[in-house]
Amino acid sequence: MNIGIIGATGYTGLELLRLLAQHPAQPRVTLVTSRQDEGRALTQVFPALSGVANYDGLKYEAPEAGQLAGRADFFFLAAPHGAAMALVPALLAGGARAVDLSADFRLNDAEAFNQWYQPHSAADLLTEAVYGLPELYAPRIARARLVANPGCYPTSIILGLAPFLQAGLLAEDRPVIADSASGVTGAGRGASPGTSFCEVQDSFKAYKVTGHRHTPEIEQELAKLHGRPLKVAFTPHLVPMNRGILSTIYVSPRREINPEELHSLYRDFYAEKPFVRVRPLGFEPQTSEVRGGNFCDISLFWDARTSLLKIVSAIDNLCRGASGQAVANFNLMCGHAEGEGLRGSALRP
Amino acid sequence: MNIGIIGATGYTGLELLRLLAQHPAQPRVTLVTSRQDEGRALTQVFPALSGVANYDGLKYEAPEAGQLAGRADFFFLAAPHGAAMALVPALLAGGARAVDLSADFRLNDAEAFNQWYQPHSAADLLTEAVYGLPELYAPRIARARLVANPGCYPTSIILGLAPFLQAGLLAEDRPVIADSASGVTGAGRGASPGTSFCEVQDSFKAYKVTGHRHTPEIEQELAKLHGRPLKVAFTPHLVPMNRGILSTIYVSPRREINPEELHSLYRDFYAEKPFVRVRPLGFEPQTSEVRGGNFCDISLFWDARTSLLKIVSAIDNLCRGASGQAVANFNLMCGHAEGEGLRGSALRP
Amino acid sequence: MNIGIIGATGYTGLELLRLLAQHPAQPRVTLVTSRQDEGRALTQVFPALSGVANYDGLKYEAPEAGQLAGRADFFFLAAPHGAAMALVPALLAGGARAVDLSADFRLNDAEAFNQWYQPHSAADLLTEAVYGLPELYAPRIARARLVANPGCYPTSIILGLAPFLQAGLLAEDRPVIADSASGVTGAGRGASPGTSFCEVQDSFKAYKVTGHRHTPEIEQELAKLHGRPLKVAFTPHLVPMNRGILSTIYVSPRREINPEELHSLYRDFYAEKPFVRVRPLGFEPQTSEVRGGNFCDISLFWDARTSLLKIVSAIDNLCRGASGQAVANFNLMCGHAEGEGLRGSALRP
Amino acid sequence: MNIGIIGATGYTGLELLRLLAQHPAQPRVTLVTSRQDEGRALTQVFPALSGVANYDGLKYEAPEAGQLAGRADFFFLAAPHGAAMALVPALLAGGARAVDLSADFRLNDAEAFNQWYQPHSAADLLTEAVYGLPELYAPRIARARLVANPGCYPTSIILGLAPFLQAGLLAEDRPVIADSASGVTGAGRGASPGTSFCEVQDSFKAYKVTGHRHTPEIEQELAKLHGRPLKVAFTPHLVPMNRGILSTIYVSPRREINPEELHSLYRDFYAEKPFVRVRPLGFEPQTSEVRGGNFCDISLFWDARTSLLKIVSAIDNLCRGASGQAVANFNLMCGHAEGEGLRGSALRP
Repeated sequence: MNIGIIGATGYTGLELLRLLAQHPAQPRVTLVTSRQDEGRALTQVFPALSGVANYDGLKYEAPEAGQLAGRADFFFLAAPHGAAMALVPALLAGGARAVDLSADFRLNDAEAFNQWYQPHSAADLLTEAVYGLPELYAPRIARARLVANPGCYPTSIILGLAPFLQAGLLAEDRPVIADSASGVTGAGRGASPGTSFCEVQDSFKAYKVTGHRHTPEIEQELAKLHGRPLKVAFTPHLVPMNRGILSTIYVSPRREINPEELHSLYRDFYAEKPFVRVRPLGFEPQTSEVRGGNFCDISLFWDARTSLLKIVSAIDNLCRGASGQAVANFNLMCGHAEGEGLRGSALRP
Repeated sequence: MNIGIIGATGYTGLELLRLLAQHPAQPRVTLVTSRQDEGRALTQVFPALSGVANYDGLKYEAPEAGQLAGRADFFFLAAPHGAAMALVPALLAGGARAVDLSADFRLNDAEAFNQWYQPHSAADLLTEAVYGLPELYAPRIARARLVANPGCYPTSIILGLAPFLQAGLLAEDRPVIADSASGVTGAGRGASPGTSFCEVQDSFKAYKVTGHRHTPEIEQELAKLHGRPLKVAFTPHLVPMNRGILSTIYVSPRREINPEELHSLYRDFYAEKPFVRVRPLGFEPQTSEVRGGNFCDISLFWDARTSLLKIVSAIDNLCRGASGQAVANFNLMCGHAEGEGLRGSALRP
Repeated sequence: MNIGIIGATGYTGLELLRLLAQHPAQPRVTLVTSRQDEGRALTQVFPALSGVANYDGLKYEAPEAGQLAGRADFFFLAAPHGAAMALVPALLAGGARAVDLSADFRLNDAEAFNQWYQPHSAADLLTEAVYGLPELYAPRIARARLVANPGCYPTSIILGLAPFLQAGLLAEDRPVIADSASGVTGAGRGASPGTSFCEVQDSFKAYKVTGHRHTPEIEQELAKLHGRPLKVAFTPHLVPMNRGILSTIYVSPRREINPEELHSLYRDFYAEKPFVRVRPLGFEPQTSEVRGGNFCDISLFWDARTSLLKIVSAIDNLCRGASGQAVANFNLMCGHAEGEGLRGSALRP
Repeated sequence: MNIGIIGATGYTGLELLRLLAQHPAQPRVTLVTSRQDEGRALTQVFPALSGVANYDGLKYEAPEAGQLAGRADFFFLAAPHGAAMALVPALLAGGARAVDLSADFRLNDAEAFNQWYQPHSAADLLTEAVYGLPELYAPRIARARLVANPGCYPTSIILGLAPFLQAGLLAEDRPVIADSASGVTGAGRGASPGTSFCEVQDSFKAYKVTGHRHTPEIEQELAKLHGRPLKVAFTPHLVPMNRGILSTIYVSPRREINPEELHSLYRDFYAEKPFVRVRPLGFEPQTSEVRGGNFCDISLFWDARTSLLKIVSAIDNLCRGASGQAVANFNLMCGHAEGEGLRGSALRP
């Protein structure tokens, strides 16, 4: 199978290339695109890829949208928000299937997209696109032409809350509070003052404290699980590390929680899912345990003093929160097992 | 004035020595104690202090409690919890004054101390000891014989909430949620697997998710401001950095908030306080802006979507959260201006 | 094939478990040993391994030496120096083959071992053991019962110098200078004050400046390439990072160097070697390009001003410098291609 | 005394502002210049400076060269190379004195400057400018109108070698090898891909391996000490830390070294110098011991096996290697003690 990667100069593109190189089905990357690096060798931009798979033979190209479809059977779109919606219709029309790692097809509602991002140029595809969280939507993903790969923060938060919400345990009228912290790769590969080493190192900050654009995506999916709309107070933070997201989620349950019971509920919910590890009660998740892998670690803490449930979930933002999940979706769409090429351990330490 | 530092082999002891060396009143450290390093030169344990003040001439001693009082006019106790209560009665009896950086005298209530720590051997001093947060208690600190220096997390959380609570703005029956993250110096200087470089670097974790011992201290002080008991859901996290605490605090106000009005309230509350910087609306605090200094940065974020107020506060855990605050208390107790020796900028980057 | 890992609680053991889990031949780890963690589940000590391979089913054992041989067909010894020599004779006698990751069998000369380490209890095996650097000794490794896996610093230095020395280019009587820097995993997993986060973070140091025990190993192998004894001035440094070694090597050539010619010499020398990447002239190697992988990156810099050749080589100390190289040796010993299970890209960033 | 800082938006400018704020003579910064930030408040660009000295009242200005002189009595030029030479003549003509932190006046020879940098527009001042290394040139600095503040790498290397070279101990015809490693602040505050967090973190690299522009400066000053020309093979490396330079220097002595004797020679040479700490034999310097301070730590290692002397020196590149040294020069030029305002300890950890 021939693979095209649109926007292969960022960190999610690089991570896709890493993961595809170790995939047992040996999918062959035949196209990597980039406007700014057109004509350069892939391994000049990413020297780490030299000697790996067929990557020494690839050069960045910048074909027109109409020329893309014939170049590969399957596309990963790792371009900035707004770029995918301009390309996907042509790709699908050309008979290809695609996983889009941007936000372009994550929201079901064109108006919400317009409000949080920009006007949508391919709004008719919003209902066709399947939200690519395998634990919730595997059967639909398997049949999809277009999968919208979830955002990194939403992945950690939705997986952390799904069993709780689906069981109807959330108290009415209480917002969910999701306090999350991410490594710096989440900000992308472009140089900016705020992500230079000296500004980030030995520092910790909150950012976009009230209006982060992952909010509507989180609320959309949580509302489906909850059965009605709900509000999420989401606060992202920046950690001086490369990879990882840890979300500490605070919810008010409808009734007192028995921790062992809740733990069983979570274990059952994720029993057949290879990439969610519901950890023993008392386990303190940390992002290094999932570095470089596709796992999501979840721990539950019942705080009887305050009657709040604290749920802590950890993922690798680049792998599980982006390219690893994209490969899992690719697997499901192509008839492979969800975990093909993704079963490895974290790189630890 | 002669200064003794009890337990001068940890990071708070080291930070005290750094700060006292740059104090314009030139307090003279005449005694540094340590059991494990008795007899060693101070600058052998801390080579950074060589060439600074009179530190090349100091050796660690391990005198009996009864011999301490005569050795200095003023004592900082930077020993582990439980050690101070065994020494302070003798120090006071000998006519010295003291700031204790441990938790031993922070709780007013001996029973609470027993529940969260251990039985108290000097419980009669709990009512005399003054909680050393200058913004709230400067006049009492100035007259105190014994000041209980606040914990690092409590400092960041109490300063972040004080104006809000004192104005009676907290909705009834809603817990305060304090989601905090600390640098690794907060864990002390002793080697342990959990704080080795390879375990901490490039990772982020939650720890002691439901039972951190700073909880009763936080609730004690917030309750005084609020005018009645309240509950705090406090979750500490570990950040791969040396110094810094950032607390993101979520509160449900009694009524809708006008952000400009609240900002004015905070500005007014801290108008005469040299070490609290109420930042402009929209400012995103980060710990590097306070690294090595005594400032507390506070920002306010009204999240109209969820009707939650988010307060973000940042301090240096070792300086403002420990030794810098101890020096401020020393200043007040000795008739100096609160900011003497502490007015410098952060070490940035 | 059944695999035993002796001393599976350190970082090299963990790295072996990571690499074996992704090996296409699916070698099965049937034994993990540890004295201090006897009886504990493997995934309790290393939660990252949960859900990976058969690791959730393994418990640490502490069998007697005599009982080991029957427990696996192939052994990796990842125990501290001194432990392997006590076990290897019994393993070999039992018919197993082994790669020893400690220093116990790296030196050919028992007296040298005694001088730099301790008396050797299995000195007769020193001549049988093959030094496990595949680029130099692949055929002998393939036939070996016992392979001494090279040290991390020696791997980076020997690979950097091999083509130069074998071509007879070193000036007489000039020492080789190898200035190397390593990530902190090189110090192992045990907690010690010198490798605690706060001591290492934001700092850089030289250590063991004149007597590092990798010196005789480096000199032994370089002498073989050079054809006569030579001296190496080796200085290790500690970098605040988890993984990676970069060596900057200074040599005085016998005659003026033509950089292009030397570059060709290196390209030719390593033409058939899958894991050495001789980089283009001008390329500045960095350890992140080899993080988590088995590659060694080499660049050549001719400094005409000083008539010194600078060779810069970069490896991942845990993978190429330890467990990855051990798996390559395992591959050769078992008839697999050298690169089986090791062909992945670096984890970048 | 009124101080102007030219180019006050970089890290050396920020460090000057930090140091001047804690200077006992209370020099008053009356002018901060920047083209790109003209009109912005100083504390908007550097929030850490809010509440410190008079900094809340300063705005960036961008006056013409001719208007500068009247604005302050003393100038620090912290602008990029090439900018100072255009301004200094006017400043001096206006009666001001100046320390230039750029390279513009470090080389005595206009032709060398042209070769390594660019044509010099104020070459007549090259002979007047004094090289601002107080340990070597304090008396001349005290009388200078213009001091060329040394580069960061040169400071560490020259201080490490001065006693050795002045004693005539270097063997003929052997190049000095200086292998240095720097924190990322050395690359300045501008955002660039190579200094973004994700590219630097958890990595170590060599850069500008053969042609770093500090080379002629190092050779110029070492030649003066040596009494004749010599060559330096200098290799800089980038460390994932904010501050610090550690240089490991290799020299071939003319004769066998007695380490104790050499140690005495160094102790004597620096006996009256407040900021060089010749450490005991065996001491392993690390950059954290000098973080934020003006000290240079030096250790000597005689490697009898190779007959090479290894000298290790550590400084803070921003403080001792730039702004701290500039303040020391300012002190000498203004009749203060060299150490005024610089006597503090490192910020440790």
